[in-house]
Amino acid sequence: MIRLKLSVDLDYEIADQTADFIFNIHAAHTQQQLVVDESLGLSQNVQGQVDTDPTSGNRYLRVRASRGPLRVSYSATIDLQHHVADPAQIAEVPIAELPTRVLGWIYPSRYCQSDRLLKLAAREFSQLPWGYSRVQAIRDWVLQRTTFMSNSSDAHTAAVDTLIEAAGVCRDFAHLMIALCRAVNIPARFATGVDYGADPALGPTDFHAYVEVYLGGRWYIFDPSGTAIPMGFVRFGTGRDAADVAFATIFGAVSSSAPHISIAAVPNADGQLIIPQHTDRALSTDA
Amino acid sequence: MIRLKLSVDLDYEIADQTADFIFNIHAAHTQQQLVVDESLGLSQNVQGQVDTDPTSGNRYLRVRASRGPLRVSYSATIDLQHHVADPAQIAEVPIAELPTRVLGWIYPSRYCQSDRLLKLAAREFSQLPWGYSRVQAIRDWVLQRTTFMSNSSDAHTAAVDTLIEAAGVCRDFAHLMIALCRAVNIPARFATGVDYGADPALGPTDFHAYVEVYLGGRWYIFDPSGTAIPMGFVRFGTGRDAADVAFATIFGAVSSSAPHISIAAVPNADGQLIIPQHTDRALSTDA
Amino acid sequence: MIRLKLSVDLDYEIADQTADFIFNIHAAHTQQQLVVDESLGLSQNVQGQVDTDPTSGNRYLRVRASRGPLRVSYSATIDLQHHVADPAQIAEVPIAELPTRVLGWIYPSRYCQSDRLLKLAAREFSQLPWGYSRVQAIRDWVLQRTTFMSNSSDAHTAAVDTLIEAAGVCRDFAHLMIALCRAVNIPARFATGVDYGADPALGPTDFHAYVEVYLGGRWYIFDPSGTAIPMGFVRFGTGRDAADVAFATIFGAVSSSAPHISIAAVPNADGQLIIPQHTDRALSTDA
Amino acid sequence: MIRLKLSVDLDYEIADQTADFIFNIHAAHTQQQLVVDESLGLSQNVQGQVDTDPTSGNRYLRVRASRGPLRVSYSATIDLQHHVADPAQIAEVPIAELPTRVLGWIYPSRYCQSDRLLKLAAREFSQLPWGYSRVQAIRDWVLQRTTFMSNSSDAHTAAVDTLIEAAGVCRDFAHLMIALCRAVNIPARFATGVDYGADPALGPTDFHAYVEVYLGGRWYIFDPSGTAIPMGFVRFGTGRDAADVAFATIFGAVSSSAPHISIAAVPNADGQLIIPQHTDRALSTDA
Repeated sequence: MIRLKLSVDLDYEIADQTADFIFNIHAAHTQQQLVVDESLGLSQNVQGQVDTDPTSGNRYLRVRASRGPLRVSYSATIDLQHHVADPAQIAEVPIAELPTRVLGWIYPSRYCQSDRLLKLAAREFSQLPWGYSRVQAIRDWVLQRTTFMSNSSDAHTAAVDTLIEAAGVCRDFAHLMIALCRAVNIPARFATGVDYGADPALGPTDFHAYVEVYLGGRWYIFDPSGTAIPMGFVRFGTGRDAADVAFATIFGAVSSSAPHISIAAVPNADGQLIIPQHTDRALSTDA
Repeated sequence: MIRLKLSVDLDYEIADQTADFIFNIHAAHTQQQLVVDESLGLSQNVQGQVDTDPTSGNRYLRVRASRGPLRVSYSATIDLQHHVADPAQIAEVPIAELPTRVLGWIYPSRYCQSDRLLKLAAREFSQLPWGYSRVQAIRDWVLQRTTFMSNSSDAHTAAVDTLIEAAGVCRDFAHLMIALCRAVNIPARFATGVDYGADPALGPTDFHAYVEVYLGGRWYIFDPSGTAIPMGFVRFGTGRDAADVAFATIFGAVSSSAPHISIAAVPNADGQLIIPQHTDRALSTDA
Repeated sequence: MIRLKLSVDLDYEIADQTADFIFNIHAAHTQQQLVVDESLGLSQNVQGQVDTDPTSGNRYLRVRASRGPLRVSYSATIDLQHHVADPAQIAEVPIAELPTRVLGWIYPSRYCQSDRLLKLAAREFSQLPWGYSRVQAIRDWVLQRTTFMSNSSDAHTAAVDTLIEAAGVCRDFAHLMIALCRAVNIPARFATGVDYGADPALGPTDFHAYVEVYLGGRWYIFDPSGTAIPMGFVRFGTGRDAADVAFATIFGAVSSSAPHISIAAVPNADGQLIIPQHTDRALSTDA
Repeated sequence: MIRLKLSVDLDYEIADQTADFIFNIHAAHTQQQLVVDESLGLSQNVQGQVDTDPTSGNRYLRVRASRGPLRVSYSATIDLQHHVADPAQIAEVPIAELPTRVLGWIYPSRYCQSDRLLKLAAREFSQLPWGYSRVQAIRDWVLQRTTFMSNSSDAHTAAVDTLIEAAGVCRDFAHLMIALCRAVNIPARFATGVDYGADPALGPTDFHAYVEVYLGGRWYIFDPSGTAIPMGFVRFGTGRDAADVAFATIFGAVSSSAPHISIAAVPNADGQLIIPQHTDRALSTDA
């Protein structure tokens, strides 16, 4: 059992009389991700409302704030009890056996236009043996063809743009990997959290986007940008793509500063300090 | 209470040894749309499995069929008990008061890239009084700027393409209207069914795509292509856009013929024959 | 006869051992634009080579420079002898009468995808009386629907993007106007120069992009972004779009600073100081 | 010296009172392509006007025809005196040494958005030795990744679409190859003609699109779709891309039938019958 301590501080300056915010910065509730404790602070005297989506476990914080500065501070202690499996034993699930609730994850979405990539994906990946290793091959294909480059993409950049322009940030790597998986009928979704273990040369700890793929009856974690240590990912949200799980969706004239984020392993309930590390095993925190 | 009798016949020729199909041609279960009776026939000796999505009420039929011809025949008797309201009394719901389950419908999707239309939508629609009439204005704007033209679009055509190329079929009108609604933070979704009352000059009765918009706490029906009589719409599915609710999603080498579809009003349980007609009132079949 | 004095200073830092540059910052040679004198300075001891394209009159400066700083300083005195006409007297030229050399200017180009705008342009502009006023209507349509916003576009932004996203800088206004003109078979081209008379609130004097349209047997000047005084435009280059007449095309690892540009009216050969000003007359400097 | 006999018959039905046509179906005049004789027939009693573009040698036929049927019949006898070279001896021309008239062919165009492919092209092709073989590698890369499929593209399909969707017809193969060449600063242009030697299984003889690349001071022929025998290509036109050299550009309401085209080798002036064939040598018909 890994225990992680997480904090996120977000600073805004609201120019309108009021502005609405929807945040997705609360740790999700899943069977393998337990929120031990958490706290939320708002610098304005306003009420935040947290709703949990029953299907995804995503938790959305809504805030209506007034003109002036707003600081949102979230901290939490999280226990991760990964499902760990041998990649060689993990099969793909044929279309005919996919649960209905999973079907939607093979359809194209705003930033993952899998419908346009059917032939390309078939040419590259249809000859490979089915299973976890095929998804790993897709992940490696994306990583090899895409250069990690800050500010090389914007809020409109989608998978086909990343494929063409061959550069992006973590969200773009995730979108392209998801689009390619769906193009060969493998359910895949976008996940958000914190970039545990990211190379400090890439800058301070930041939010992160990665991928979950449905294999062998579970959602397995993949990190196509290769910047971090998946074993340390605390999940905020999962969705079709970045459109569903923005860290903050803002309605109104608001300026923002860079977030301050920290994450670290701490001793667990048994007093053990388990440090997330790279592994060849397959990891999942959700069925 | 309107009672409609509906039949859909779909013909396929399967070239592969087996092929998987996911159909969304069953009438949805909603509070105002009751399936009185229905029957499903498959020409091959295979088992179709129908699942209902608990959130949307969409019903998905899955079939695994073998090489050779496949006919899928669905017929149903449906009672529609519309919620009818005065457009002038229907308000928009501010972001801060949107139920969490509705939030997702303001986000962009594969074919409704509302994120790219924020400025255009603000310029055209932000000065209008909020309410049903503003959504009607968006609907009229789309209808006036788009020419209905068969074969002017394909499976990749999205709202921004329709805006630029100024032509499309019902699905394209729907995508553009949805994208513009979301761009001004009005929840909107894609609905499918049968083109009740369509101008016979447009060809035989066909599937149809239209729009539902969340206003005053309910989902109201809009028909941006203006080809049919909304009061006669039997809903199959609702989704982000056409990606979610294809009439048929096919996995394998399969050729298809034009569908045969019929829909007609019949006497209801009280023996009354109520014929759907155009109305200035607002109609809804779902909360 | 207007006489203008122009200077352009460009600063680069070359990281590679050598880098190649192609500049288009020399005033073009046209019948109505005379270069009275000019000088070019290069901070490195290298030879710049200036070629004139015989068709367009564009002048391209090629420089191969070495690692380290490079300053390019160009200054010139230019006489403009505008062809001035009454807009009401200027007709469009029917396709059948267009000179062969002008035909190419009705075809789509990288940033002016007129082929996608045929229906939209027909709907908006085909009912208008033909002539200069129709082109003015296209220009006004673009100006009204597009917000001038620094950094709202990048090197890949094309006319259809500007139409959708409803924002841009001068180059984007020009591309959209050109695409719409070509979509109704009016030859139009992209012109570059200096933003004479630009509102100082928009920042220091900068390069500018505008439009020339072929009407009544000549190329007339239009300024769709409306930021400057067309009578003071010194033309550098004309081309299909920005791809043809970049101020600088750079081959190699080079960083650049903001350009320093000045332009001002000076006394002409007769000792008269004629200040360019806004006018309702039609202006042309090229046949 | 290869002598070819070519005929093209085009049939139209004009619905408007008059319609304007611009054809580019005359064999170009180049140093290595000589038009021995030719004839043009128009079924209506109208005058066709043929202009030659002095720069490209393209010849444009303009016709204004009236309501009713129009048949355009062109036939010609052409002598091809190829410049033939050893690929191993053909070098690329560095930017600094490109003639000014060739510079424009490294810029992006409507259907060849090389500006978006810089990183991808650099990753794939920048490590290869410079020269004819590098261009051959680009040609092979396109051929391997693209499936030839009739009706898989339309008039708006551009190189980046072909890259993503991995299918197209000859024009799409050409656009993608051109875009990749320009992305590594190799001048490339679009050429049109007749599909000499095409596999009869692909259908009757048709128009063709291929590529010319500037290497070693000449324009060399490449056939990225690999469907035909380049030694038998009679060139109609060259341009930035398909926008410049459509076989027919039509202004008005006109319907068309499939063209009837034939091409065959005939005895040359010396009475020799030389049949074009596949070769490993490099071919050029233009400097």
